[in-house]
Amino acid sequence: MAIIQSSAYEPLTEQKATALAVRLGLFRDGTPLLCREIGDGNLNLVFHVVDQETKQGIIIKQALPYAKVVGESWPLTLKRAVIESNALRTFASYVPQYVPKVYYSDESLAITVMEDLSYLQIARKGLIEGKTYPLLSRHIGEFIAKTAFYTSDFGMNQQEKKKLAQSFVNPELCKITEDLVFTDPFFDHDSNNFEDELHLDVETLWNDDRLHLEAAKLKRKFLTEADVLLHGDLHTGSIFASDDETKVIDPEFAFYGPIGFDLGHFIANLLLNALSRPESERRPLFDHIDRTWAVFTSVFSELWRTESVETYAATPGLLDDVLRQTFIDAVGFAGCEVIRRTIGLAHVADLDGIEQKDERLAAKRHALRLGRRLIVERAELDGTEDFRRLFVETER
Amino acid sequence: MAIIQSSAYEPLTEQKATALAVRLGLFRDGTPLLCREIGDGNLNLVFHVVDQETKQGIIIKQALPYAKVVGESWPLTLKRAVIESNALRTFASYVPQYVPKVYYSDESLAITVMEDLSYLQIARKGLIEGKTYPLLSRHIGEFIAKTAFYTSDFGMNQQEKKKLAQSFVNPELCKITEDLVFTDPFFDHDSNNFEDELHLDVETLWNDDRLHLEAAKLKRKFLTEADVLLHGDLHTGSIFASDDETKVIDPEFAFYGPIGFDLGHFIANLLLNALSRPESERRPLFDHIDRTWAVFTSVFSELWRTESVETYAATPGLLDDVLRQTFIDAVGFAGCEVIRRTIGLAHVADLDGIEQKDERLAAKRHALRLGRRLIVERAELDGTEDFRRLFVETER
Repeated sequence: MAIIQSSAYEPLTEQKATALAVRLGLFRDGTPLLCREIGDGNLNLVFHVVDQETKQGIIIKQALPYAKVVGESWPLTLKRAVIESNALRTFASYVPQYVPKVYYSDESLAITVMEDLSYLQIARKGLIEGKTYPLLSRHIGEFIAKTAFYTSDFGMNQQEKKKLAQSFVNPELCKITEDLVFTDPFFDHDSNNFEDELHLDVETLWNDDRLHLEAAKLKRKFLTEADVLLHGDLHTGSIFASDDETKVIDPEFAFYGPIGFDLGHFIANLLLNALSRPESERRPLFDHIDRTWAVFTSVFSELWRTESVETYAATPGLLDDVLRQTFIDAVGFAGCEVIRRTIGLAHVADLDGIEQKDERLAAKRHALRLGRRLIVERAELDGTEDFRRLFVETER
Repeated sequence: MAIIQSSAYEPLTEQKATALAVRLGLFRDGTPLLCREIGDGNLNLVFHVVDQETKQGIIIKQALPYAKVVGESWPLTLKRAVIESNALRTFASYVPQYVPKVYYSDESLAITVMEDLSYLQIARKGLIEGKTYPLLSRHIGEFIAKTAFYTSDFGMNQQEKKKLAQSFVNPELCKITEDLVFTDPFFDHDSNNFEDELHLDVETLWNDDRLHLEAAKLKRKFLTEADVLLHGDLHTGSIFASDDETKVIDPEFAFYGPIGFDLGHFIANLLLNALSRPESERRPLFDHIDRTWAVFTSVFSELWRTESVETYAATPGLLDDVLRQTFIDAVGFAGCEVIRRTIGLAHVADLDGIEQKDERLAAKRHALRLGRRLIVERAELDGTEDFRRLFVETER
């Protein structure tokens, strides 16, 4: 299975990507094709191959054997391409409407050939432009509920689940999350990245024992709880959307982890967008948070009642306990994501794109206060309406 | 890796076992060897090969492709032999003094060749005879502390840990525990086995919603928490002992699970022995429980302070939180084991061996009451002294 720097691997060119598309029979014979590399070149090559007559296209995504972020470069397993294509296929078996179709994958070349979704927009970009995507939370709530339930010990044969979890062991990508989400932002670490003006605020976090203890507990959950197959990086930049459709992409961080993790990351990225907006325009984000949780619980509960394979599923109180723990975890994971997207290595355009420096710094300080309270007080939140309350209470 | 019914597999005979021992060079050339099959034939063949002159021996253990328990027979993966030999080797890298030496293993034959421990006695047998094994709890506390710490995210590189956990995915053996420990005894299931006189007591358990809810939470922990490499079946029948030595054998149920599981099973089996004794002779068992926990926490805490690889290990309160959660889990797991050994498929000789029927039934009723309270009240126990309190309170 080891494919790192395997001899068969070579980066594709536009010419070779086109030839592959032809060889796979994904286009009519002799039709004129146009191929462009449209990736940002940091982690993957992304080729967009389009039939010039029908304008129908496909995407050929190839993992690169290194990662470049903010000028740094480090080796990164090519196996993530297999994880990604396997995760897309697994998700497709439960929610085909919410993931791109996978046409082909090649482990030795670290390639996934998939549906062209360029008619949709990356949700983060649209949200920054002020779009609301009315169905986004309904779709993501259902996506998480179904993929979580069907890959859990409640929705899948428990022996098959262990084998599925085994096939998604993903040490290198998980390490990125363990470091960049759960650890580095909470300590004075080289990978952190923030404006000088935030130094005092950040130092306060670094010296906060209570925050450290609660972040540590959340990290331990991430390290040990093999509950369900997660996307692993479900921020709004991993989602294509329109007013009618939602598609989840890029599950290269997929692994078996705690149910609340994807929920928390999605909610955090809605909060990060809200943090970038004037008060009068925040409501759609909080409505999305409410609906994500409401749809998740409704779909998950219905599946639990009708399709559970676990004898104890009928035990009074168990579903409530699972949902309550999931909510608490999601709140805490959201807090970690809000903090790391503000002062850690990888930022979000929602906050960094605020042009007025004073406004930007104010929003980031707000983010740090909000993130901290989400982590520390996560067990005290009663429901998603408390996101509004904490958001307001941490405004200044 | 699939070796179930592989073409190379065949059950050894005494002759073939002797030939293997000679081929492996484990005895001097030409020395006279005596070989006897000493297993109970239910799960494994166990050959004892002895040099007739030096009286030095070895054990050749071979997994059988089926399990026979109480007359039933079902197929059972041969892969458990690989799990067993790998677990023994992994444990030996941390606590060589507490496991038999492994000389050789053969995956296709499902064979482990190991140190002969027949100069020791199975601890359950000795405890039933009234032995106390003064060092038993000190040794087991250290065994669990070291194997748990060094295979956890605190004592091992966290990426290597994920790969180690992957190599110990053990669906078939875990299913036995999921069914026989966590599920069947709590429901009216065919596999249960108890005296007719206990029917009312058992029905009370089957109709106990609160017990079901707490047992379900413990089962979910077992299913999802990939904390540390566990023995997986650490009862007193899996331990060879003398007044000076303790050796843990038979880790074919090894897998990555919650830290408190092995602790709970060991404590439960001390309780089961105490349940079989008159009041005046119980003290050594409770002293063992105290010392198991005391040694575990002391050794684990010292390793945490001196050898942890996790940044958060220095965070005030984290070790306390991990130890407290481990204790609560151990109490709950102990309760499940006490109940299932009383009314489930696989009993213990401690209780079944009580000759007077009234006494036996009284001890078993006591076991059911104790087990229930350990599960339901596990978060209310302050320390191991509370095992005494609950034991007395549930006596009648």
